Amino acid sequence: MERVDNLAHERETAQFDVEAMKIVWAGSKHELDVSDRMARLVASDPVFHKDNRTMLARKELFKTTLKKAAHAWKRINELHLTEEEASKMRFFIDEPAYTDLHWGMFVPAIKGQGTEEQQQKWLPLAYKMQIIGCYAQTELGHGSNVQGLETTATFDPNTDEFIIHSPTLTSSKWWPGGLGKVSTHAVVYARLITEGKDYGIHGFIVQLRSLDDHSPLPGITVGDIGNKFGSGAYNTMDNGVLQFDHVRIPRDQLLMRLSQVTREGKYVQSDVPRQLLYSTMVYVRQTIVADASRALSRAACIATRYSAVRRQFGSQDGGPESAVINYKTQQNRLFPLIASAYAFRFVGEWLKSLYTDVTQRLQANDFSTLAEAHACTAGLKSLTTSFTADGIEECRKLCGGHGYLSSSGLPELFAVYIPACTYEGDNIVLLLQVARFLMKTVSQLTTGKKPVGTTAYMGNIEHLMQCRCTVNTADDWLNPSAIQEAFEARAVRMAVNCAQNVSKAPSQEEGFLNLSADLVEAAIAHCQLIVVTKFIEKVQQDIMGNGVKEQLQILCNIYALNLLHKHLGDFLVTGSITPKQGALVSEQLRSLYSKLRPNVVTLVDAFNYTDHYLGSVLGRYDGNVYPALYEQAWKDPLNESAVPEGYAEYIRPVLKQQLRLARL
Amino acid sequence: MERVDNLAHERETAQFDVEAMKIVWAGSKHELDVSDRMARLVASDPVFHKDNRTMLARKELFKTTLKKAAHAWKRINELHLTEEEASKMRFFIDEPAYTDLHWGMFVPAIKGQGTEEQQQKWLPLAYKMQIIGCYAQTELGHGSNVQGLETTATFDPNTDEFIIHSPTLTSSKWWPGGLGKVSTHAVVYARLITEGKDYGIHGFIVQLRSLDDHSPLPGITVGDIGNKFGSGAYNTMDNGVLQFDHVRIPRDQLLMRLSQVTREGKYVQSDVPRQLLYSTMVYVRQTIVADASRALSRAACIATRYSAVRRQFGSQDGGPESAVINYKTQQNRLFPLIASAYAFRFVGEWLKSLYTDVTQRLQANDFSTLAEAHACTAGLKSLTTSFTADGIEECRKLCGGHGYLSSSGLPELFAVYIPACTYEGDNIVLLLQVARFLMKTVSQLTTGKKPVGTTAYMGNIEHLMQCRCTVNTADDWLNPSAIQEAFEARAVRMAVNCAQNVSKAPSQEEGFLNLSADLVEAAIAHCQLIVVTKFIEKVQQDIMGNGVKEQLQILCNIYALNLLHKHLGDFLVTGSITPKQGALVSEQLRSLYSKLRPNVVTLVDAFNYTDHYLGSVLGRYDGNVYPALYEQAWKDPLNESAVPEGYAEYIRPVLKQQLRLARL
Repeated sequence: MERVDNLAHERETAQFDVEAMKIVWAGSKHELDVSDRMARLVASDPVFHKDNRTMLARKELFKTTLKKAAHAWKRINELHLTEEEASKMRFFIDEPAYTDLHWGMFVPAIKGQGTEEQQQKWLPLAYKMQIIGCYAQTELGHGSNVQGLETTATFDPNTDEFIIHSPTLTSSKWWPGGLGKVSTHAVVYARLITEGKDYGIHGFIVQLRSLDDHSPLPGITVGDIGNKFGSGAYNTMDNGVLQFDHVRIPRDQLLMRLSQVTREGKYVQSDVPRQLLYSTMVYVRQTIVADASRALSRAACIATRYSAVRRQFGSQDGGPESAVINYKTQQNRLFPLIASAYAFRFVGEWLKSLYTDVTQRLQANDFSTLAEAHACTAGLKSLTTSFTADGIEECRKLCGGHGYLSSSGLPELFAVYIPACTYEGDNIVLLLQVARFLMKTVSQLTTGKKPVGTTAYMGNIEHLMQCRCTVNTADDWLNPSAIQEAFEARAVRMAVNCAQNVSKAPSQEEGFLNLSADLVEAAIAHCQLIVVTKFIEKVQQDIMGNGVKEQLQILCNIYALNLLHKHLGDFLVTGSITPKQGALVSEQLRSLYSKLRPNVVTLVDAFNYTDHYLGSVLGRYDGNVYPALYEQAWKDPLNESAVPEGYAEYIRPVLKQQLRLARL
Repeated sequence: MERVDNLAHERETAQFDVEAMKIVWAGSKHELDVSDRMARLVASDPVFHKDNRTMLARKELFKTTLKKAAHAWKRINELHLTEEEASKMRFFIDEPAYTDLHWGMFVPAIKGQGTEEQQQKWLPLAYKMQIIGCYAQTELGHGSNVQGLETTATFDPNTDEFIIHSPTLTSSKWWPGGLGKVSTHAVVYARLITEGKDYGIHGFIVQLRSLDDHSPLPGITVGDIGNKFGSGAYNTMDNGVLQFDHVRIPRDQLLMRLSQVTREGKYVQSDVPRQLLYSTMVYVRQTIVADASRALSRAACIATRYSAVRRQFGSQDGGPESAVINYKTQQNRLFPLIASAYAFRFVGEWLKSLYTDVTQRLQANDFSTLAEAHACTAGLKSLTTSFTADGIEECRKLCGGHGYLSSSGLPELFAVYIPACTYEGDNIVLLLQVARFLMKTVSQLTTGKKPVGTTAYMGNIEHLMQCRCTVNTADDWLNPSAIQEAFEARAVRMAVNCAQNVSKAPSQEEGFLNLSADLVEAAIAHCQLIVVTKFIEKVQQDIMGNGVKEQLQILCNIYALNLLHKHLGDFLVTGSITPKQGALVSEQLRSLYSKLRPNVVTLVDAFNYTDHYLGSVLGRYDGNVYPALYEQAWKDPLNESAVPEGYAEYIRPVLKQQLRLARL
């Protein structure tokens, strides 16, 4: 294929130091180095190639995933990679696999819920992958509501065992990744029953498969739950179904850090604070927000590069057509997505520090910020994943027809990403949790309890309920404090409105249920404020590199003002801004898009993604899109022969009017 | 599988005659009968089964599609089906195939652009499928901008032939359905060059493959463009790539209704008005709007039924959990989708009558309504397909985790539907066309030219620019004229704002480009008004059946008020309503959702979709979801053996710490 750089002219117009921006994006020089090394390691290893992934039938696809996972483990050991490096390597392999659950859920569950003794027994086995584990929580009939799970674990004092059982069809474990075909063990969540009493949901370590020949153990029915959205995508994962027929496990396989059952069958709670479990949740959600920024930036990188290559209309006197990235309608859709990728990156970075803070406080038995941190991570998980899912699809649309080809990489990215909107808390359920927390915060304002963390602005309620936005010109919207105040006023006013309406209902619960749609909107307003605030704070820090800060400032303004425009109704109904100020937002956005335009390609280069990781012929670094599309097409199995299989049976008889004779 | 009707209790609460509603949805008793017969015919024929479609690798998948297409053609002939019946049958087979292009594009192109003589030669061959044709317009580097196509058709007076040629890689034909593997012929669009002059894009009939052995003819390179979004979905179609190396065709294979080339090579335009071509466009777009209502109603049917089955949270004292359809957040997302499906159905029905009207006028050489009809269909195509694409994905999310399984039917429905946002005009490009028409209409208002058709309301500009909405209570929002006026005021004010801002720019074109994001929003406002208006008009007609009209009234109000809420910013910025009136919208919506609640399952039953057509275990008529999900899972190829292929090579060595020895 021709060696050209079709995007060189775009890179020449950049007004900032892209290498410095790469460090900002990665978080530090060290993180950039590790990422860069691991990305190249993966890209250069033929085992990790993925260009034919969307063409494989399920069994073949799954087998290649097993191969990649084994090869990765081999390389991790051979190269003595650190935990950080190994995790980055798995990330750049870019293929969901049972190892994600083993390292990401099984090991942490034992660490978080197992006693010292249990950890000593199980963790070394898991660390060496002598056992492979998954996390079996959700059931066929039960998702978000963990308390509704039906699987039982009944203690039998005669044998000192728990009997794990699936009493109904809907109690079948359903969805756990790695369960279907690979895991030898699982942390199984079940209702603990002892002395005739149901003590609710607890975790148990259960062996599922023989370590000799991998066959399911007696009493265990286990399999894959079947094909999922897209080709390739999450079909590399063996999400599983699991049923227990009175499976007996030793009593000490109840994870006992928080509660135990004695030899006699007495249920005993330990004195370890249950709040510790929340820190795991904060951790997991923080990683989900980080993933959102990666997925969105990846899609935006593809759409941006291709928009700079693709030309359409605008040809004057037979000259070349205009690159679509020059159209305002394209900028208006694409640039906010680039800005959002940066916004999510920075709020994710901040969440990481929040997690450290929460962990330290918990160790000091300080639970004062936990509820706020919990609501905040729930809300940000919801906000960033929903936006990213929609954003990936928007990027696909921004690529026109070719975005629909698997070779664009976007269909698979969408299909593999969207479960993030559901797992670890359905996004609407999470927003309702945030709303409950906001209602509580509002109600406590009168008691003099000071709101903390991301709700601290609510302490300023008197001002925010009656302040008037002072923006007079489009340029006034460049002022971060004007933006910040408008978002704070909108959020607090929506929350207060909801609180007032809820209080009019016969009961608080009824009010909450009836107004839940409004409450969700109030929660979104609050969460958007957090992201805007963290972006503004980031830009106010010292930032190295020529022109870097200026670009981030533009992105920050685009992020905030685009939200303001999209949710204009909220801002106007609450009187947080006036219609005229709303119109000035559009004007300022147009100007910001023009400022960003010369830098967009370089801004997506700063994500430092390899062509392997992007996995998109449209997103190629060199912009040499059309030869690549053409080449890729011929690799389709349908092109193995000029005349397709089935011609003789199903095409020729049609053409030759011989269909009546044919037996189909 | 157990025979139960888990949704019987939902059907008992309906307050209207579902059989009468089925007729309203179908359009007439006759159409309901035809649909019903064809749907059952397809559902009962094992060749048309589709439950394993998402599990097949491309070649196998494609072969089954060829089989279905041949079988359908056989049945159509055996049963002497009418054109209406045959088309319905193809619809219910629910699988994109080359026949769609043959009947939907190739035949109409010859009818529309061929002379009488050409029609007599080619149509009988096409009608009997002795030749199979496709429509080769778009190229690798050229989509929406037809004038930018590069393929050339140069007349050679020496041999009386056109030489069809692909001068560049980007001129390769790319995307045409049916081209890759099946079509023997194509209507190819190319630049007509004669006597050294380029006369722009014209259509030519070109044979691609031998009618003897199906091999590509000399000079022709043809193949499939590769895998597309999703599994199953559009991968049943052989979208193709096609290159010409100086392929010669007889002069009389230029489609010559509008222009001819003489034996000497002189280019001559006929006196047939070019506007006739527009009526095809109106026709095609009308069918796309009808498809949108079908796709959205199908998704909404699945999501509604499953929402009535699925239970989560809300359990008091250990009783069953609450059906998720009872949650306001679910209603708030789902019910507007049901309402939109009905809205699109009725606007589609109206578009059909518009097409008849346009055709009759054209035959009488009356072109006065053509521009308006063209803009209107462009806008409605854009509006309904974009909304439907998002709506299907929203329905998937409303089904929680299980919506992500292929067996839910929603992933494939999404993947197969979304091209509608791009083909026959990219949705944003179309909205810009609408906006141009609106700007023209606004500018002509002062000249006294009366706006026609769907822009007639603009004639009332003086009133609409300064009228004030009189809504005082939530119930005032039930008044159709209040709704209508608010939508008209918003649309006209947004258009006028845009026109004023465009006129401030140095040139109109520059103004148009700079403000294109605002113009798109104005176009959307106009198109939403059309849909609202047509729904209101529909409800004002005589409608048979107990309670049917009442339900449609509720749906109409939900459709309009939900839009009003979603686009509140527009209504407030333009002063079309006040913030207080905006708040009353939310209040009224809550009340409307409660009214609709007892009827929703029956309202989606009225679509009269068979379980075969729905293709969803979640959307089953009997609501017996969980056993079906469980059964379907075991059909996955991965479950053919308990121990997966690859265990010995890639799992066992990991577990047994033998990876260093392994060669992967």
